[in-house]
Amino acid sequence: MQGTSEILEQAIEQLAKLPGTGRKSARRIALYLLKQQDENVMRLADALVNLKKSITRCSVCGVISDNDPCSICTNPKRDQSKICVVEESQDVFLIEKTNEFRGRYHVLGGVISPLDNIGPDDVRISELMQRINDEKQPIDEVILALNPDSEGEATAYYLNKLLKPFDEVEVTRIAYGIPMGSELEFIDEATLSRAFATRNTF
Amino acid sequence: MQGTSEILEQAIEQLAKLPGTGRKSARRIALYLLKQQDENVMRLADALVNLKKSITRCSVCGVISDNDPCSICTNPKRDQSKICVVEESQDVFLIEKTNEFRGRYHVLGGVISPLDNIGPDDVRISELMQRINDEKQPIDEVILALNPDSEGEATAYYLNKLLKPFDEVEVTRIAYGIPMGSELEFIDEATLSRAFATRNTF
Repeated sequence: MQGTSEILEQAIEQLAKLPGTGRKSARRIALYLLKQQDENVMRLADALVNLKKSITRCSVCGVISDNDPCSICTNPKRDQSKICVVEESQDVFLIEKTNEFRGRYHVLGGVISPLDNIGPDDVRISELMQRINDEKQPIDEVILALNPDSEGEATAYYLNKLLKPFDEVEVTRIAYGIPMGSELEFIDEATLSRAFATRNTF
Repeated sequence: MQGTSEILEQAIEQLAKLPGTGRKSARRIALYLLKQQDENVMRLADALVNLKKSITRCSVCGVISDNDPCSICTNPKRDQSKICVVEESQDVFLIEKTNEFRGRYHVLGGVISPLDNIGPDDVRISELMQRINDEKQPIDEVILALNPDSEGEATAYYLNKLLKPFDEVEVTRIAYGIPMGSELEFIDEATLSRAFATRNTF
């Protein structure tokens, strides 16, 4: 017996399942919650239940959203001619934070990964092709913003091949290279090599 | 606008209030929960609500417990003559894990801290004195297991003074010194100095 409360142990067990939370932090969180006011804990529990019950996905771009279509897809100020392809919804939030891109998104919901038995039909690639075919305003650029790992690279190559026949669509990729503020000394060879291969004019 | 979902942002906001969880981990947790099955998220939310609604404290020792008195205080196999004084309930769970102590506990619920306006009456010291006076079986040892910070030390000295008049009660402290597995080189002066001052015969 480690504790005097089965209820506490149950809360710890549930909390310890969360990513980045071991049993020690789960215990710390549970004991912290015990000290909080009732309504604060209710607010947290409600927010979590709400998350599963009320959230939906945008049927156009696939992003996690309260409304369908989402606020980005329905925003007339967004550039309708550019689609940025990402792996997951969280990538949309990360890119939005940069304020660098004013077009729209397409969330694949995964990447092609033969080892995990994930083929092109398991991610939202046909939906992307349909969007490019159907959009009233023509798409002139598809920006691939996939992770620079082997699955992301494979998916990028696959998409590039699929999009080749569309002469009016330019396929671009976000730049992969040395992160800002870091030093060459601490950069791995693959990154450095990519940074050289894709160097720009100054 | 960072996201497309107010509900998601609300969940992140609530999660980010938890200790050790910044906005980044809160976002990761929220997106993880979104991918989970409904019942898993419900189980977590229920466990948290339960934590506040159903848990109580042992009226004898003050530990967080499902029952009052707690399973330690009611366990006839525990040594009734020894009381280990700790600051918080979590200290009880930590000590229980060691299997080193088979007596009972007394949770102060804090330590004396004049700077924070916490005096002897704000922690469960009078309850401890009453226990020592009232217990049918006499207490022969009170073990102070407080944190070795200035508040913990001050509280230990205060308790030692209070317990002086009880000739039959021996007041002891857990040992403070070099942690197992560490090296002298990395130990601070105060710890090393304490380790020398409280050295034992081999």
